Amino acid sequence: MAVYTEVDDQDLAGFLEDYDLGTVQAFKGIAEGVENSNYVLETTAGRYILTLYERRVNTADLPFFLGLLDHVATRGVRVPQPVHRRDGAVLGTLKERAAALVTFLPGISISRPTPTHCHAVGEALAHLHAAAGDFGLNRANSLGPRDWLPMLQTCTDEADTLREGLYHELATMVTDTVAAWPTGLPEGIIHADLFPDNVFFQGALVSGLIDPYFACHDLLAYDIAVCLNAWCFERDGAFNVTRARHLLRGYSGVRSLDEAEREALPVLCTGAALRFTLTRLHDWFHGARGPFVRPKDPLEFLAYARFHASAQGPGDYGL
Amino acid sequence: MAVYTEVDDQDLAGFLEDYDLGTVQAFKGIAEGVENSNYVLETTAGRYILTLYERRVNTADLPFFLGLLDHVATRGVRVPQPVHRRDGAVLGTLKERAAALVTFLPGISISRPTPTHCHAVGEALAHLHAAAGDFGLNRANSLGPRDWLPMLQTCTDEADTLREGLYHELATMVTDTVAAWPTGLPEGIIHADLFPDNVFFQGALVSGLIDPYFACHDLLAYDIAVCLNAWCFERDGAFNVTRARHLLRGYSGVRSLDEAEREALPVLCTGAALRFTLTRLHDWFHGARGPFVRPKDPLEFLAYARFHASAQGPGDYGL
Repeated sequence: MAVYTEVDDQDLAGFLEDYDLGTVQAFKGIAEGVENSNYVLETTAGRYILTLYERRVNTADLPFFLGLLDHVATRGVRVPQPVHRRDGAVLGTLKERAAALVTFLPGISISRPTPTHCHAVGEALAHLHAAAGDFGLNRANSLGPRDWLPMLQTCTDEADTLREGLYHELATMVTDTVAAWPTGLPEGIIHADLFPDNVFFQGALVSGLIDPYFACHDLLAYDIAVCLNAWCFERDGAFNVTRARHLLRGYSGVRSLDEAEREALPVLCTGAALRFTLTRLHDWFHGARGPFVRPKDPLEFLAYARFHASAQGPGDYGL
Repeated sequence: MAVYTEVDDQDLAGFLEDYDLGTVQAFKGIAEGVENSNYVLETTAGRYILTLYERRVNTADLPFFLGLLDHVATRGVRVPQPVHRRDGAVLGTLKERAAALVTFLPGISISRPTPTHCHAVGEALAHLHAAAGDFGLNRANSLGPRDWLPMLQTCTDEADTLREGLYHELATMVTDTVAAWPTGLPEGIIHADLFPDNVFFQGALVSGLIDPYFACHDLLAYDIAVCLNAWCFERDGAFNVTRARHLLRGYSGVRSLDEAEREALPVLCTGAALRFTLTRLHDWFHGARGPFVRPKDPLEFLAYARFHASAQGPGDYGL
């Protein structure tokens, strides 16, 4: 994590001419986000994050992401809120990159979530789903079930060098999971990447949900499945059913899960674990390398996928 | 510039047990400083910078650097002030690295200094010299005149691959400059690296001098010579005598330069330019490489050294 594009005081002053934010008090590049350059900016008007979009994020999607933040922020969800320029736009250009300013959120990410944190994340996720319900823009999930086999096939020749039999095992799991994928569940806008890195806490309270750059339209319960993978496994790989129960209870307290959603949890969780296995596998063999880009272990989520594939039903998640 | 060592909330909480700083409000890795890992920490008690010392900085020197900051901060110089732990110490250990907390300073670095900025930097430098006058610890300059020839000799085989004749030209300039090096000038603690990156401004006022990790005992006017190199050349390599005059006037308004110091400006400036040429030359051939370590052009300061070597006297600096 690093700053890819350096912005100096003159670049910043030029960019800020389009905003009404007073005088610059401090400006520091921060190591947050894997693919973009981020700065903390303090002016006499407040504190902000400046993001320069570098790669991976398709700039055509930025109006969706920034519009979503704006939409849910005005409905009380604690997300970074885009700052509007004098002309009303939320996107500008800086150092030849698309760039946006959002409000700074206090709080700190939690490395070892407790059941209390998981309850709070479940609640926050449900609030996000509710607030995004009437958001007018749309974006398809580019990492959904139909994309998994093609993703695996980018590593056909390499997968078994990581572990013998890996390609075959993943191909079988993907095929089975896609075949069993539920239809007719409630849909809406999901975050799709709500890992602990992307949630700020102040004490036990969620103070911010960040990094909406995978948000898309999909099954709402699939977002819960992502969170169950992201928040409820111990470092030794064991599934912590207490955390899962708290996460699901937190969510259900805001939006109750219907019977079909509960029954679909094992397959949705298997799919979510496969999605992260496959992107990590791709990045392992084809991603950028460097001192500040440490590829993550693809096999971690494969173990999670196996757990979910063997789950009998919602009881395995504490319901 | 990046964060080399990742510190999570648990690491931070353990480290902060030795301090009285209340509850953590925010914590972000920042891309500041080339060799250390830095974080902005906000607690209910205030805002701080957490530094983990990674390399190059000899940990045996840290009591000098941190003690110097503490000493001059209590005398009104705007530098980051080390925060004392409950046991009185200013150095702790975090992730197996020496680590310290200092106060956060507002302000922003200036990429294109005006004469007004230069005047303010001259004043600030003189205030630093005055405040450090009765500091009790000492540190020799490890990049002083006697070190230049050995530094050049680390690149004996490589120098001419950068530009033909470079080794000979530098060897001659170093020898001549060391031979002409003044004695008997006022000495004291100098910053030795007061580049624009290391000075924060709020408007036209200096709000912070940072990065004291080259500070040492040496000729006070040598520190001015470093600043004349760092602040007074245009991007096209031309020396801006107006900025130099303002920098020297700012300094002299606080501590007047004696005749010998004024007369020594050309040789001191030549030496300072050679010092940065030589460290850049060394880093060019032997320094760490990577996407976030861009070696700086050694020939930039060689051009400055030539300018100073041909200067006739203090008049060339606007005096």
